[in-house]
Amino acid sequence: MIEFGLDRFGRLACLGFCVIAATPSAGWAQAAAPDALQVPAKSVPVPGTVSPQLAKIVGMPLRNGWDVLPKTGEDWVPVVQATAAATLKNLPAMQERLRVKVEKTTIDGVRAFIVTPASIPPQNQNRVLLHMHGGCYVLNPGEAALPEAMFMAGFGGFKVISVDYRMPPEAYFPAALDDGMTVYKALLKTTDPKKIAVFGSSAGGALTLEMMLKAKQDGLPMPGAIAPGTPMSDVTKVGDTFVTNAKLDNVLVSPDGFCDAGTVVYAKGHDLKDPLLSPVYGDMREFPPTILTSGTRDLLLSNTVRVHRKLREARVEAQLQVFEAQSHAQYYRDDTSPEAKEAFEEIGLFFDKHLAK
Amino acid sequence: MIEFGLDRFGRLACLGFCVIAATPSAGWAQAAAPDALQVPAKSVPVPGTVSPQLAKIVGMPLRNGWDVLPKTGEDWVPVVQATAAATLKNLPAMQERLRVKVEKTTIDGVRAFIVTPASIPPQNQNRVLLHMHGGCYVLNPGEAALPEAMFMAGFGGFKVISVDYRMPPEAYFPAALDDGMTVYKALLKTTDPKKIAVFGSSAGGALTLEMMLKAKQDGLPMPGAIAPGTPMSDVTKVGDTFVTNAKLDNVLVSPDGFCDAGTVVYAKGHDLKDPLLSPVYGDMREFPPTILTSGTRDLLLSNTVRVHRKLREARVEAQLQVFEAQSHAQYYRDDTSPEAKEAFEEIGLFFDKHLAK
Repeated sequence: MIEFGLDRFGRLACLGFCVIAATPSAGWAQAAAPDALQVPAKSVPVPGTVSPQLAKIVGMPLRNGWDVLPKTGEDWVPVVQATAAATLKNLPAMQERLRVKVEKTTIDGVRAFIVTPASIPPQNQNRVLLHMHGGCYVLNPGEAALPEAMFMAGFGGFKVISVDYRMPPEAYFPAALDDGMTVYKALLKTTDPKKIAVFGSSAGGALTLEMMLKAKQDGLPMPGAIAPGTPMSDVTKVGDTFVTNAKLDNVLVSPDGFCDAGTVVYAKGHDLKDPLLSPVYGDMREFPPTILTSGTRDLLLSNTVRVHRKLREARVEAQLQVFEAQSHAQYYRDDTSPEAKEAFEEIGLFFDKHLAK
Repeated sequence: MIEFGLDRFGRLACLGFCVIAATPSAGWAQAAAPDALQVPAKSVPVPGTVSPQLAKIVGMPLRNGWDVLPKTGEDWVPVVQATAAATLKNLPAMQERLRVKVEKTTIDGVRAFIVTPASIPPQNQNRVLLHMHGGCYVLNPGEAALPEAMFMAGFGGFKVISVDYRMPPEAYFPAALDDGMTVYKALLKTTDPKKIAVFGSSAGGALTLEMMLKAKQDGLPMPGAIAPGTPMSDVTKVGDTFVTNAKLDNVLVSPDGFCDAGTVVYAKGHDLKDPLLSPVYGDMREFPPTILTSGTRDLLLSNTVRVHRKLREARVEAQLQVFEAQSHAQYYRDDTSPEAKEAFEEIGLFFDKHLAK
């Protein structure tokens, strides 16, 4: 006879002749804190639920050099140069496929690129997007910042201004934010704020949110919409997926990896919990309509959904899209993957819905 | 001198005197399939980013009896009774806190409960919600189905009809779906479909989606909105988080656990890939506005986000909310947790936006 009963949590428990196998973690429970779950090692294959292009990206091993942790702006230089070189190599073909034009410029002293698609649909003629690139506040200087701007311009049909903001060792916190604000203020002189959207991923997602906090502080109008992708919204290492997706996210890999190291160098001793570095701690009331993007394997999935909940608690119009099996920011890794097109078309639809024409 | 270069993936690789520690998984890579990632064991604490009430739920060990796998409807009876008893024990206090009234009824031969909040706001006076409960198509008969219906009625201020659909050993596929459709058709006789919403979680989320597919097949009008929570949208075990969140989700625990076993018993040999059992494979064009709910630790996070993407590809108005650190359907575990109130208020706002008055 099988007898079941209830334990103190009201969960099903075995009282009699129940066939309940010990879980692999059962032997560890006593050694650990009572509320820490011991999750066994696992072999994680590439699921059949992603495109062939994305499967190649999902199936990559952990990023080589994820635990190389330069401690100064100067020490970052060779790492920055190597990663930038990799990006630049792919840029011409990507630019051709996405049919975008790139012009280098300077806006009130800040370096920037203007990325223009081959054709701009009528509803987007007077709209402009401000792009803050990602890279942990240290990576992707110059043209290396451009892939995401090109995806957005090409898939969305928008003119994009990508800010080539200052980074270590040239400058430190709040230089990136200041440069973004300088370009935003310059845009406001000629453009209805409701025709402007701000977007970016990772550090660029955080900077997008930080710019909204700063604009509120400075009494500037909000843009018509924003799209922070997988934002580094909490750089204090707080958030569940920092643990649950560690060593699963093959891009960021760990909260103790290169990205955190880059941010610490940029912050240069400034409090990491300042909302201008960890915007999840900021006041998001009156933020413009926001669309957030992440993936199920993203180390920053918690960083993303926490911002989404915070925006919704403030009753801001906010959409969340989470892509199957993607690690950090893999929606702009390969412009030939259908998931990339889908992610940026979705952002484009959101902008189209919320921006003035 | 430090020298970096690029490997064949265009990722940063060490060429010279780089300090790159071997990852814990490095030794396993050769033994496994080249594209399977070896994720090491980890100790996962309760994050500080959830409420104290939710922290208790997140901190629970893996559900006892998760690998008890009854093979027939009759074998499920003692398991069903034990879990139902646990739920019923908490029901009176919950009902009092949520200030809802419960009446037992029969609608065209189908057992149901009418759950009515103490006060219904004016805009909801003529609206009605149809609830399909969860429980892997075998659990939560009778009043045990009511917690989620009570949360929705209490936090949202809606009248809810909860369908006590037939389950094994009383009946098998497609009995649950048929009973849901019978109640929906009965409602259509008296109520504008645009004043009806359908909701439910887990199997109830799948049934919500299956009912939309069936309504389309039968030429019935769509309701005004639906809210499938963490739907069992793919019971063929396909989806990334079946692997990545295994042994992390402390409710479902594994795709080889009790829930899958219950579904197989209900299906009774029917093809599990039939969209009326795995609705992610159905045609979702013309679906009503949909809000989906999940958690970052949910074994069915992929099941949820895949439905979200599919709906958006079909250009259906669809919202996704993902709660920090929650395992499967933990948003309706404790009515005193702020996250529960937040989840159901969000669904209520979505219904209010999309339902006719």
